[in-house]
Amino acid sequence: MANITSVSPLACPLPSFIPVKGVRLGASAAQIKYMDRPDLMMMVFDKGTSVAGVFTKSRCPGAPIDWCKACLSLGNARALVVNSGNANVFTGRAGAQATQVTAAHAARLISCASSEVFLASTGVIGEILPTQKITDALPNLFSSLTAEGWEDAARAIMTTDTFPKAVSRQVKIGDTMVTIQGIAKGSGMVAPDMATMLAFITTDARIGHDALQTLVSSSVETSFNSITVDSDTSTSDMVLAFATGAAANDKIRDVNDPSFADFRRAFTDTMQELAIMIVKDGEGLSKLIEIDVSGGVDSHSARRIGLAVANSPLVKTAISGEDANWGRIVMAVGKSGEPANRDTLSVGIGGHWIARNGMILAGYEEAPIQKHLHGRHVTIQIDLGLGNGAARIWGCDLTHGYVDINGSYRS
Amino acid sequence: MANITSVSPLACPLPSFIPVKGVRLGASAAQIKYMDRPDLMMMVFDKGTSVAGVFTKSRCPGAPIDWCKACLSLGNARALVVNSGNANVFTGRAGAQATQVTAAHAARLISCASSEVFLASTGVIGEILPTQKITDALPNLFSSLTAEGWEDAARAIMTTDTFPKAVSRQVKIGDTMVTIQGIAKGSGMVAPDMATMLAFITTDARIGHDALQTLVSSSVETSFNSITVDSDTSTSDMVLAFATGAAANDKIRDVNDPSFADFRRAFTDTMQELAIMIVKDGEGLSKLIEIDVSGGVDSHSARRIGLAVANSPLVKTAISGEDANWGRIVMAVGKSGEPANRDTLSVGIGGHWIARNGMILAGYEEAPIQKHLHGRHVTIQIDLGLGNGAARIWGCDLTHGYVDINGSYRS
Repeated sequence: MANITSVSPLACPLPSFIPVKGVRLGASAAQIKYMDRPDLMMMVFDKGTSVAGVFTKSRCPGAPIDWCKACLSLGNARALVVNSGNANVFTGRAGAQATQVTAAHAARLISCASSEVFLASTGVIGEILPTQKITDALPNLFSSLTAEGWEDAARAIMTTDTFPKAVSRQVKIGDTMVTIQGIAKGSGMVAPDMATMLAFITTDARIGHDALQTLVSSSVETSFNSITVDSDTSTSDMVLAFATGAAANDKIRDVNDPSFADFRRAFTDTMQELAIMIVKDGEGLSKLIEIDVSGGVDSHSARRIGLAVANSPLVKTAISGEDANWGRIVMAVGKSGEPANRDTLSVGIGGHWIARNGMILAGYEEAPIQKHLHGRHVTIQIDLGLGNGAARIWGCDLTHGYVDINGSYRS
Repeated sequence: MANITSVSPLACPLPSFIPVKGVRLGASAAQIKYMDRPDLMMMVFDKGTSVAGVFTKSRCPGAPIDWCKACLSLGNARALVVNSGNANVFTGRAGAQATQVTAAHAARLISCASSEVFLASTGVIGEILPTQKITDALPNLFSSLTAEGWEDAARAIMTTDTFPKAVSRQVKIGDTMVTIQGIAKGSGMVAPDMATMLAFITTDARIGHDALQTLVSSSVETSFNSITVDSDTSTSDMVLAFATGAAANDKIRDVNDPSFADFRRAFTDTMQELAIMIVKDGEGLSKLIEIDVSGGVDSHSARRIGLAVANSPLVKTAISGEDANWGRIVMAVGKSGEPANRDTLSVGIGGHWIARNGMILAGYEEAPIQKHLHGRHVTIQIDLGLGNGAARIWGCDLTHGYVDINGSYRS
């Protein structure tokens, strides 16, 4: 039996945190489920903070998802309150009430509208959120917030995560240096009773709501929508971005503004780095799998093919067993439902092509691929030979550790 | 480490085989890959045998799939030749040639057209099929065929299967007693380097090609298209039905013919029983999972929801761990992409409702569900509360055995 509390072999260190102007944050122990560590996180933003977000596509979303979607249409944020240990999902009317009450309490402390308080919950499904534990803890938590609370915040939102996840960047908009700093949690694309993918990215840049939303929506495609641990989509997935404007750059209203190009790239990199950290903490993983798809009819199709390969239990177990079983990659491409032609399909591992245009290469040697498969970072190359659609997907292998964690977890 | 050669705990015994009038069959050892057992199976049918089939939807199908699809449009069958150990998939022009040569050799022995010879291959992907081993073995195999070769045939098509799979039925059409007898292999919906889902059903009933095709196509929805082991779809899946007509009943041309009702039911039952046997041999399984979905907007939607639950690694590991983790069922319903409403959704296990209309039941007790989960046959109930769409899906749990078999198999 694997030690299910051991840290991922691909764990990433925390960055050197930089205070983000206009953001104060911290964590405290509300004892919602975990009795031995902080489980309640709060961020407070200066007036004028714009917000953008994307949410789970689940048809059974949690109450905080409903709450945030409604608030997001107004475009302003003053606070974020996140608890771990209870997802507030499938809790009926009580779930909606819990969000209203929590937001109202936070709003009173800050003197803002409830609709400016964003909420997220991650943990067990189907149990009523003990709202009073949260509202009791909020006043002291609020009065303890500082600009330095980043590590505490990153740790408080963890559930089955084996390491806290954060990315920090500085970049110029025009002549103004601005900071982008984000935290995330997730250790499986989801394990809906205790884990969920959450990411919160802040910046002190001045960016209009619409421009920020455009940036988040486009960046999510090549970051959080391009990773998978186990193909299971949470009821609570959420990415929120907050721009306080405290850096006082010339306000960005158009994402295509040339002075915004460096920021755009840094923001997208931040999203992608956080996303890959979640995969690197994939439940039970021993290897990160990076899949490059080219030659698809378009990038959407290429991404779906990459995800079909990344989600295939047979590909995942082959990689875990360090078996150069490329036929399973062909199988997964074929089952994706996307346009593919057996006779123009090429497949490689570790940068070495194995089969081109529907047949194994003459003189194919397995030794260099075997060597590559012994490493922690396995790459797969797929060329469909149909068009210019390309995508990169990150996944992980399927191991005994995954079965241990998820077969024995809740009880 | 699990013993990967042990027989499934849910293995089914072979039935008492009945000779099917108009069918002779047998098996021999062509030593394509397995050196220690028969790996080549042949059935020969009397003149006038009609044939119907359904095939994998993979975009990268094997050469025998292409061959059978082309032959099927002609509607007549005189022979079926199946090898195990090599799938003849992703083998380019050589793969197509192998099918032509094999069919031509069989046709010469039988004195029929090549297009009346159906072919299937199951085994490793990407290796050239050693056609000559097959054509060398065919003459002796052909001369050894008998009406009693059913068990040999069922065993010769196995790959990672741990038990041979067959179903036998007798039923009347009008006053004529007819026999339906089928064999299948599969031990995962697929493990494309060695396993594939194949099923061959024969009957001595006289049924027109179109009626037989209609029957196969409709029965496949509630049988082979309603099972899953690991969500991976083979490049070689194939269900073929052969009706020799030797029972000399009044020929059935319309599946809605009232005298055909009993046969229809028996045929559909045969398909379903064979399909469930494949799940019962699911790689590494410890439990069969039967999912009843009701209240969907239509039966197609209900089936997709049932498959999303059956394919969820988190549901499968929870069942393997005997954990009544019903939140994961909610999650899987939500991610299916099908119409679902959190507030009308009900979920149960083992016939006990746990949550109704979006909330856990007052006074919910876990003890009877725990008891049910200790068994080999776990049932899940899902009511969507939206319409009359219903479906039943069969899957299995995800265990260490699956990781062992597929992580260490090819090498």
